[in-house]
Amino acid sequence: MPFRAPVDDVRFIFDHVVDFDKVAATDRFAEASSDTVDAILGELARLSEEVWAPINRDGDTDPAMLENGVVRTSKGFKEAFGALAEGGWLGLSAAEDNGGMGLPLALTSAMNDMLSASCLSLGLNPLLTQGQIEALENHASDALKAMYLPKLISGEWTGTMNLTEPQAGSDVGALRSKAVPNGDGTYAISGQKVYISWGDHDFGGNVCHLVLARLPDGVPGTKGISLFMVPKYIPNEDGSLGEANSLRVVSLEHKMGLHGSPTAVMEYDGATGWLVGEEHKGMAAMFTMMNNARLGVGIQGLGAAEGAYQKALEFALERKQGRTPLEGKGGTGAIADFADVRRMLGEMRADIFTARSIALACAVAIDMGHATGEAEWKARAAFLTPIAKAFGTETGMRVSEMGMQVHGGMGFIEETGAAQYYRDVRVTAIYEGTNGIQAMDLVARKMMDKGETAFALIDEMQAFTETARASCDTLAEPLWQAIETLREATEWMLAQGDLNERFAGCVPYLMGFARVLGGYYHLKAALAEGGEGPRSRLAAFYLKRLLPEHAGLLAHATAGAADLYALSIEDLSA
Amino acid sequence: MPFRAPVDDVRFIFDHVVDFDKVAATDRFAEASSDTVDAILGELARLSEEVWAPINRDGDTDPAMLENGVVRTSKGFKEAFGALAEGGWLGLSAAEDNGGMGLPLALTSAMNDMLSASCLSLGLNPLLTQGQIEALENHASDALKAMYLPKLISGEWTGTMNLTEPQAGSDVGALRSKAVPNGDGTYAISGQKVYISWGDHDFGGNVCHLVLARLPDGVPGTKGISLFMVPKYIPNEDGSLGEANSLRVVSLEHKMGLHGSPTAVMEYDGATGWLVGEEHKGMAAMFTMMNNARLGVGIQGLGAAEGAYQKALEFALERKQGRTPLEGKGGTGAIADFADVRRMLGEMRADIFTARSIALACAVAIDMGHATGEAEWKARAAFLTPIAKAFGTETGMRVSEMGMQVHGGMGFIEETGAAQYYRDVRVTAIYEGTNGIQAMDLVARKMMDKGETAFALIDEMQAFTETARASCDTLAEPLWQAIETLREATEWMLAQGDLNERFAGCVPYLMGFARVLGGYYHLKAALAEGGEGPRSRLAAFYLKRLLPEHAGLLAHATAGAADLYALSIEDLSA
Repeated sequence: MPFRAPVDDVRFIFDHVVDFDKVAATDRFAEASSDTVDAILGELARLSEEVWAPINRDGDTDPAMLENGVVRTSKGFKEAFGALAEGGWLGLSAAEDNGGMGLPLALTSAMNDMLSASCLSLGLNPLLTQGQIEALENHASDALKAMYLPKLISGEWTGTMNLTEPQAGSDVGALRSKAVPNGDGTYAISGQKVYISWGDHDFGGNVCHLVLARLPDGVPGTKGISLFMVPKYIPNEDGSLGEANSLRVVSLEHKMGLHGSPTAVMEYDGATGWLVGEEHKGMAAMFTMMNNARLGVGIQGLGAAEGAYQKALEFALERKQGRTPLEGKGGTGAIADFADVRRMLGEMRADIFTARSIALACAVAIDMGHATGEAEWKARAAFLTPIAKAFGTETGMRVSEMGMQVHGGMGFIEETGAAQYYRDVRVTAIYEGTNGIQAMDLVARKMMDKGETAFALIDEMQAFTETARASCDTLAEPLWQAIETLREATEWMLAQGDLNERFAGCVPYLMGFARVLGGYYHLKAALAEGGEGPRSRLAAFYLKRLLPEHAGLLAHATAGAADLYALSIEDLSA
Repeated sequence: MPFRAPVDDVRFIFDHVVDFDKVAATDRFAEASSDTVDAILGELARLSEEVWAPINRDGDTDPAMLENGVVRTSKGFKEAFGALAEGGWLGLSAAEDNGGMGLPLALTSAMNDMLSASCLSLGLNPLLTQGQIEALENHASDALKAMYLPKLISGEWTGTMNLTEPQAGSDVGALRSKAVPNGDGTYAISGQKVYISWGDHDFGGNVCHLVLARLPDGVPGTKGISLFMVPKYIPNEDGSLGEANSLRVVSLEHKMGLHGSPTAVMEYDGATGWLVGEEHKGMAAMFTMMNNARLGVGIQGLGAAEGAYQKALEFALERKQGRTPLEGKGGTGAIADFADVRRMLGEMRADIFTARSIALACAVAIDMGHATGEAEWKARAAFLTPIAKAFGTETGMRVSEMGMQVHGGMGFIEETGAAQYYRDVRVTAIYEGTNGIQAMDLVARKMMDKGETAFALIDEMQAFTETARASCDTLAEPLWQAIETLREATEWMLAQGDLNERFAGCVPYLMGFARVLGGYYHLKAALAEGGEGPRSRLAAFYLKRLLPEHAGLLAHATAGAADLYALSIEDLSA
């Protein structure tokens, strides 16, 4: 049973859960008609199923290696990336001026879902390139745009993000990389950057590094940071590759997973760079790229979950272990019929639906913000981004863990392939801002509007659920109560003037919010099919079995900081 | 900061949580005086800190390998095992007749905790050998006992368990290995066994395989299975090693973790075996070994959690990332002072305490059963075993996951060592009966007494909590309510005549039971120090933040089977 792209699930969520038709109804995205969407999803499904999924294991067993200073990538990766580039898919949501298709980010998100599910390690490359395209579109000079965007959009060149330094991880402001004006409009960039995903490869073309560094007059902290484009090869005016820049890959990290994605330590030694955006405003430009990437990483998590789920389901339908409860009752005869295995499969599927719905709702909000310019949509998008990132990646971890469990002993054997999902997806909860950082962002920055955005979403959920009571009270009633608990937890958060009180429960708050959101999306799905059918059965499963987790999470969320700091270092060390 | 054995925690739990003094007060264990316990824990702490912890990374980076048909073990493993054997520690709880110390299993459990925390992969070897010693003590003939027990107890020889075959995992009864009487009292054993931990090594001495196989007149299923001792070398009458037996290691598995533990595919080709116990009663004998091993595997999980926690705490106290909320207020200046990092450290520590308390309570119940012969203690031990196994290993997974998270990007880099705990501990939720099998055991076999054992424990918890209300109501009140919810869930379980209704929620039930038990043990700890001190602060943290999870778990537990089986295979495959 080879990988099958989740086209039906995406299409259903577009149509019935996240109201993609609103996007298609805007002038900006008028081309995203239903037929176009179907055609695109179909093409991407074929690419992910036939070209990407077959190389996923090679990415693990034949890892990217640094050989004579150059990264040699895994078997088949160059060709698979080439197939993506040839389709023009890197520019699916890029502006048409530079060769992009100008289609909604929701479609790119669906693409990233399929690419992540079929080959997470290679999928990280287009994700970074997409982010770079967006950062350049929004912040670069016309000259830089003209030079880089067409090449990035065609996939001839690829992009990276260079933020982290050994001493500056979550605290980006502590970076030490320097930029010195060369006097000719360019800058000399020096410093070491770590954890640079796809910092080099052998696909041909250029590797375009967006690098954060401090100008001589940059103040300490994040406000003194500027952003630079520092290409591996300095392009000639005609766009051909010129001389090599003063940068190199020092080493590749030896990671627990995602071996197909080369993670580089980069050294810049007076490398030539071009300013992107204004001096000292690098963080703002980088945030454009990061917000895009955060949603993308959440989608990586749920994509990996999809891959792990399909593998586990296949095993559960093949593996026989004694008499099942459905023997003689039309069962499969395989372990999928045992209650606890069925329970795991149900949890996996229900939470993939939840994570996918949250991610696509976030993408639709981003698209609506772009298309309408309305502040409400932009705020909705900003609010959903950390939830999509953290819940998507937690789902990746949980589902791949259950995927191994369904396999029993074989799950722990590398050749089975189930363990690869578990190892690969683990980093998604860490990079692009750890899930803790996402949760802090949610309860602080994303609530600076006095909770207006949070309550707008809560109100929307509650109004829908109130209406649903008429036709579907058994599903709607527990959800209505859960939304009420979420409202109270949100009010508690906003009442805390000291942000640290919020931070003390921010991760469980984010997870509790996602649990309730999941109930809303499952209910929408159930009502869309009139309360009877596979979506309704999955909704009933979710609302009965997984939604109740919100209570524990939201109690934890509102515990406050006192008990945390009461636990002294001595207490913890004893 | 090198590994520090959790002697203080063990000692505190012995004294104030699991009433170890009851064990020491029995005739059988009268030698387990407080001074003896201290001396033993001190010696084992030194061994685990100085000899075992330093080789843990070698077990990962220099994995056991099959070379010319013989297993070559990781660097330092032979010497570390030798140090354990020299101390006589393999026989800590073995009968004195054969050279054992005859001390309580609670002490052996504390040892396994330290050995697992310092080197999980090597620790699996003594765990298996301990189980084999117990199985032989209870079921073997005097001749077999005389030949094998002294050598196993001295650590000169080691033991394995051979249950699983490719087609017979959780369904042990499907095994095909055969035993044919040789006419001289021995049997010819043939068949293939998989996942045989420590199936071979280069420590010297014999490898003693306990093998399940079917006699010619054995009926199909588990009732036709017999148990045999099949040594690698056939011992001469004087106990020296004789000729090689007809068995071999076909290959070692390539696993996600636990690389220091060789996992063998074993081939028996008419190998000479000796019957252990009666013909066709092999499962009963094997269960003796498995129950011991199940508790031991739960302890592996919490031991790995301890190792992962110490590593994360060390990192959190060293790593600096910007201004912390405690700056200028006596903080450490390191990330341990950020609320979300402190929250993770608190969760890790609180759940290690929970898992350790459950495991040691189980060990004490086993000891009391042995010492007094009382059915209540035996039933308590049997009831706690699956909880100790599953909750201990889930804690291993959760804590090692958080350990990586605390490390941020460095957690994903293998050289850091945090990832090893995450990879190593994963299998503990799978082997010795998956956690799903444990939960099925809990709600079916362990409730065949109409819930008498479950309710005895629930009553004990509730009576204690009721009393605690007088002095400590803020802690006791939420626990009292949680116990009530657990009682209702337990009543629901017992009301289900169809076991599959119970199985549909058995894993969340087990986890919910553990959550409530954890509240009880934390409360006992808090009261033991008069409600003020580090244990009380940890208890407050647990009761406020982690206990509330019981609500979601127990709601899930009692959802019934209807929604599960409503999800058809088509629903799950769509």
